[in-house]
Amino acid sequence: MLKALAEDIIEQIRKADFPSIVMPSRTTDNIYFDKKLRQYVLGEKVVRRTARNVTHLKPLTQLIWAGYIASTLLRENKTSTLRDVFYMAEGEGLSFEDQPESDRIITELESVIKHPREDFNIFPEERSAMFGNLEVEYTVPGYEGRRLNFTMNPDGIVIGPAVATSEFVDTDADKVIVIEKGAMFTRFVEEKAWKRYNALLIYTAGQAPRATRALIRRLNVELKLPVYLFADADPWGLHICQVIISGSANAAHIPELVTPTAKWAGVYASDIVKYDLPSTKLNEQDIKRLQEIEKDPRYQSEPWKTEIKKFFEIKKKAEQEAFSRYGLSFIVDKYLKTRLEELEG
Amino acid sequence: MLKALAEDIIEQIRKADFPSIVMPSRTTDNIYFDKKLRQYVLGEKVVRRTARNVTHLKPLTQLIWAGYIASTLLRENKTSTLRDVFYMAEGEGLSFEDQPESDRIITELESVIKHPREDFNIFPEERSAMFGNLEVEYTVPGYEGRRLNFTMNPDGIVIGPAVATSEFVDTDADKVIVIEKGAMFTRFVEEKAWKRYNALLIYTAGQAPRATRALIRRLNVELKLPVYLFADADPWGLHICQVIISGSANAAHIPELVTPTAKWAGVYASDIVKYDLPSTKLNEQDIKRLQEIEKDPRYQSEPWKTEIKKFFEIKKKAEQEAFSRYGLSFIVDKYLKTRLEELEG
Repeated sequence: MLKALAEDIIEQIRKADFPSIVMPSRTTDNIYFDKKLRQYVLGEKVVRRTARNVTHLKPLTQLIWAGYIASTLLRENKTSTLRDVFYMAEGEGLSFEDQPESDRIITELESVIKHPREDFNIFPEERSAMFGNLEVEYTVPGYEGRRLNFTMNPDGIVIGPAVATSEFVDTDADKVIVIEKGAMFTRFVEEKAWKRYNALLIYTAGQAPRATRALIRRLNVELKLPVYLFADADPWGLHICQVIISGSANAAHIPELVTPTAKWAGVYASDIVKYDLPSTKLNEQDIKRLQEIEKDPRYQSEPWKTEIKKFFEIKKKAEQEAFSRYGLSFIVDKYLKTRLEELEG
Repeated sequence: MLKALAEDIIEQIRKADFPSIVMPSRTTDNIYFDKKLRQYVLGEKVVRRTARNVTHLKPLTQLIWAGYIASTLLRENKTSTLRDVFYMAEGEGLSFEDQPESDRIITELESVIKHPREDFNIFPEERSAMFGNLEVEYTVPGYEGRRLNFTMNPDGIVIGPAVATSEFVDTDADKVIVIEKGAMFTRFVEEKAWKRYNALLIYTAGQAPRATRALIRRLNVELKLPVYLFADADPWGLHICQVIISGSANAAHIPELVTPTAKWAGVYASDIVKYDLPSTKLNEQDIKRLQEIEKDPRYQSEPWKTEIKKFFEIKKKAEQEAFSRYGLSFIVDKYLKTRLEELEG
């Protein structure tokens, strides 16, 4: 797609046309939540950046430069970040006002070539991790053909560019369990949740980085593994799970980042009551966020609706670790078992 | 030490004494910065918690309970976090006001038995990562005797309880390079900094978790590897490096968390000038923090003093990624090479 874009521009110049690039409009009036797909999608509107229009000249040049950087990264087999791109532009005397402007151009390139930026080696800064019986084969330079099993290190294997681009070779797992917090991830490894429930465990470190969301989708689509999402019982935990399921309006142009069949597995507001969990009062910020979430199209199905109502009713939140009041094994022995039976049943 | 503490208490009760525990005082008037050791240490003052005094009864009971939890974690080979301990206490009807109170009791237990809490299986929530030619042998249950080489995954191996408690078997590295950011860590792997400079690479993910600081110390003390620290050129980056070197006043009772010979390797304020790095103006918060740092006893040596002066002079800060203005390889090819030569020379 990158090559086609370049050839198209060269062809236009050869024909002595003013070069232009057409891309889907990403303004709010062209972003829809598709209830069936359970994700944001773009409508039909397009915009054209053309060298004929003097106000377009700068963003058009920036976009073409971004395409050049993308092809360079791929050719040289180097990964980078949005921040690197901003600084590289500065090095070449290309005038981006600030990093948000340079980020926006990369997003436009994604929407033109219809591939997430990870596909042209721009990766997130943040790192997450995985554990479980999955074998992958690397495709990155220096590691081509080498294999890794994710049970190698009980503390987990980092998910970065090399893991994100690896090929799945083999697994005996029949599900994926995604966990918000590092210590809870270790708890699940220690309590052998991966063995007892035949699961791959993924640690998101808060909001899952994009490369991790893409990997979760691949596990779901390529290996047909159902995905279960665990986070704290508060509006922020809900959102960590929801972004993995439905993505964000910002990324409406890239379907490769969502896992619509992933299931929110807790901690629910009703679990706070059912398990009599140590909890704290929702603060003003929590309430405000919960009110936003209540109106958000991504939360208009079950169990979200019932649980959001429950949060407003009990006005409490709880952390995953709250289950430790029943001992360290309880969350895996009892809670996880019960919840998986409910969701699989 | 934990056992000795328990036996001492039982002995006191047998003798029909009111049981008591003596511990070093951790109030500010008993915390000193030792210039020779380059770390905070505790003075000679002690406090005694005794059942004879009714106001001591609650904290004494809590401290003994914390000792019980520590011995249980060790016996059952389970790891946990400060947060878990707080919830476990709630489960047993032990009244901690809030988590800071429960955290304080664990810190007191550390100071009584003179071991960091990681030694009785209370680990940080956060995770960091390592890459390089180091082979370790695990000691955690289910993995005893199994080995891992840290070149297994180019994205890095997570440092958690299992890695932190592993034994070093073999390495051909002759230094450790510690890096603040995930994407920069990946850059150093891709550019083969580990191979070219014979280094183990550690990614701290911001402020280094305690278990990682302990591991850096072990690499320095047990394997005699010099340690070099890289972070952003701003007061927060300086502090990430300094805490690895000298620790914090809060942890004055545990020497196992510092690496006094570790060297701050950049990015210096003078590098911003020397390399003409893209930079932004120090904001009010940065200036305030820099003023605090200027008076801090940990920053009264070189290159800190000169560089802090330089920050005030140029009033600018820069990120590690700013070197990308010279291309993605520059930071490893040129900058790292020059800086290591300066520091080793």
